[in-house]
Amino acid sequence: MLRIQSLQISSFFATLPSRSPSLISISKASATRLRSPMAYHATSSGATGKLLFRQLFEKESSTYTYLLADVSRPEKPALLIDPVDKTLDRDLLLIQELGLKLIYAMNTHVHADHVTGTGLIKGKVPGVKSIISRASNAKADLVVEPGDKIYFGDLFLEVRPTPGHTCGCVTYVTGDGPDQPQPRMAFTGDALLIRGCGRTDFQGGSSPQLYKSVHSQIFTLPKETLVYPAHDYRGFTVSTVGEEMQYNPRLAKDEETFKNIMENLNLSYPKMMEIAVPANMDTIVQDDRRITYLLESGYKTTLPVTRLVCPKERRHVRVAVSLTVVIELR
Amino acid sequence: MLRIQSLQISSFFATLPSRSPSLISISKASATRLRSPMAYHATSSGATGKLLFRQLFEKESSTYTYLLADVSRPEKPALLIDPVDKTLDRDLLLIQELGLKLIYAMNTHVHADHVTGTGLIKGKVPGVKSIISRASNAKADLVVEPGDKIYFGDLFLEVRPTPGHTCGCVTYVTGDGPDQPQPRMAFTGDALLIRGCGRTDFQGGSSPQLYKSVHSQIFTLPKETLVYPAHDYRGFTVSTVGEEMQYNPRLAKDEETFKNIMENLNLSYPKMMEIAVPANMDTIVQDDRRITYLLESGYKTTLPVTRLVCPKERRHVRVAVSLTVVIELR
Repeated sequence: MLRIQSLQISSFFATLPSRSPSLISISKASATRLRSPMAYHATSSGATGKLLFRQLFEKESSTYTYLLADVSRPEKPALLIDPVDKTLDRDLLLIQELGLKLIYAMNTHVHADHVTGTGLIKGKVPGVKSIISRASNAKADLVVEPGDKIYFGDLFLEVRPTPGHTCGCVTYVTGDGPDQPQPRMAFTGDALLIRGCGRTDFQGGSSPQLYKSVHSQIFTLPKETLVYPAHDYRGFTVSTVGEEMQYNPRLAKDEETFKNIMENLNLSYPKMMEIAVPANMDTIVQDDRRITYLLESGYKTTLPVTRLVCPKERRHVRVAVSLTVVIELR
Repeated sequence: MLRIQSLQISSFFATLPSRSPSLISISKASATRLRSPMAYHATSSGATGKLLFRQLFEKESSTYTYLLADVSRPEKPALLIDPVDKTLDRDLLLIQELGLKLIYAMNTHVHADHVTGTGLIKGKVPGVKSIISRASNAKADLVVEPGDKIYFGDLFLEVRPTPGHTCGCVTYVTGDGPDQPQPRMAFTGDALLIRGCGRTDFQGGSSPQLYKSVHSQIFTLPKETLVYPAHDYRGFTVSTVGEEMQYNPRLAKDEETFKNIMENLNLSYPKMMEIAVPANMDTIVQDDRRITYLLESGYKTTLPVTRLVCPKERRHVRVAVSLTVVIELR
């Protein structure tokens, strides 16, 4: 099991130029866990106990960003899961007000519906390391693998592989143990949504794979485990593993039915995909803020991403400027 | 102190015709509290411990609805705070899936930005009682006063008067005691928002009154008390009393500064006000679903509500049908 020890890594990677991150492999090593008092889990606030937890919402893409911190430690090490570029200033101000030290900005997968905030964070908060799964094939400071543990203070997130929506999707699950939050919390990305799941028709998606992922990696957690997805479109904020096993209209079905449902969703092409996927695959582009500027000025990037091949993806980026002229005939 | 004992009241009021609720005054009476084991507070789920808690979001008006239940009791008595008409089916399905028995549908105040779901709930779930403050002057099955306790199972909400946004605003606060949720949770309506507060320029609003309400009734709670407002427009889901005392850009200021801020907000007239206020004042109209149908078909009600006078409000309702015709000149 890998333990990413925050302070060591922060000082180690701080010597790397922030504008040229590369895929960094960390050899697995055991590490001594600090002894800590019994944890108290206040799911929505860290006012009491070790864990400070905040769920944050980005309305346009209906994305949830999660802030977690160990407030029992003097430096209050914190991490953000699935930050969005547009709401980054809000998140960073909150982190500042709460007196936290952001050490990780991590993604559950390469998003197709919004631009991740991780690249921008790295430009704004020195020392923060971006994290994504190795299987995603995307660039980040730290790439994690199944079974890895990501420590922030005495608390940690366990990496569980949940491909199927994309080939690199992972679920981050709070630790199992007497000094970790109870009930456990699973940040499922797009693998498992509340009464739903992510689509499986692009970005290396596969419905049989998603079914297997959720049933083997999430539905095997204790039933009271809290499910915190990357999105919700109907106003739900949280669910539990037990609830989704019973009431998820897709994943509570047998595999064949699930496959049929996923093949007949007839979803439209995600409007942000041609901008978001190249930006989220490569934080260099975002560090330069080129993608963000393109977005804000209404121009458009184009990219052949209708069917990305995993694990070796071909990545072509073409930037095109479009101008709409309305001609009125009188 | 009033204890509303759920089962007794349910059977008592069930004999009243549901289509003609009237202002019901309940004499205050002491009641024996049932002894209960030590409560475990899982803020976002009731999988462990007594309290099941869910925060639900209505995107159009950015309204939060809260579901609370005591799941340690066999009948799992539950209540909804600030339900919205448009998301009612979602909420009722969730209640059904979780095996809860909804006993109360309550409002923090007469909303001006959305139509409450309480009237519709009463038509769909027999036995549910609507609750609002007496000071609101609105109709409900049960009208509550400062200091009242609203019990659901062994758990209760305390009624704290927080007028200023409207004259009848209240904050519902979870109980104080070893068998009640820790940290406490304050459902502040529009009195205190996360890093903000409700406007004070209509519906009997008063900025000096709001300042006094928040400082005397909310900022006196323990600093770790969780603040759950009726709205958030920037994607925050929760705050704490301590945070708002320190960082609320309006209410952390002195009273004079607060008054100046509130007088210079230059807010536009709320677009839903002419429909929502008359509907929310009188659940009879909603029971007939007339307001909802009017809303959905795009027609418009008009009402002189720019300055409602509290506590004795004149309530004139005129229904007008408007039709927009666009004439193109060629």
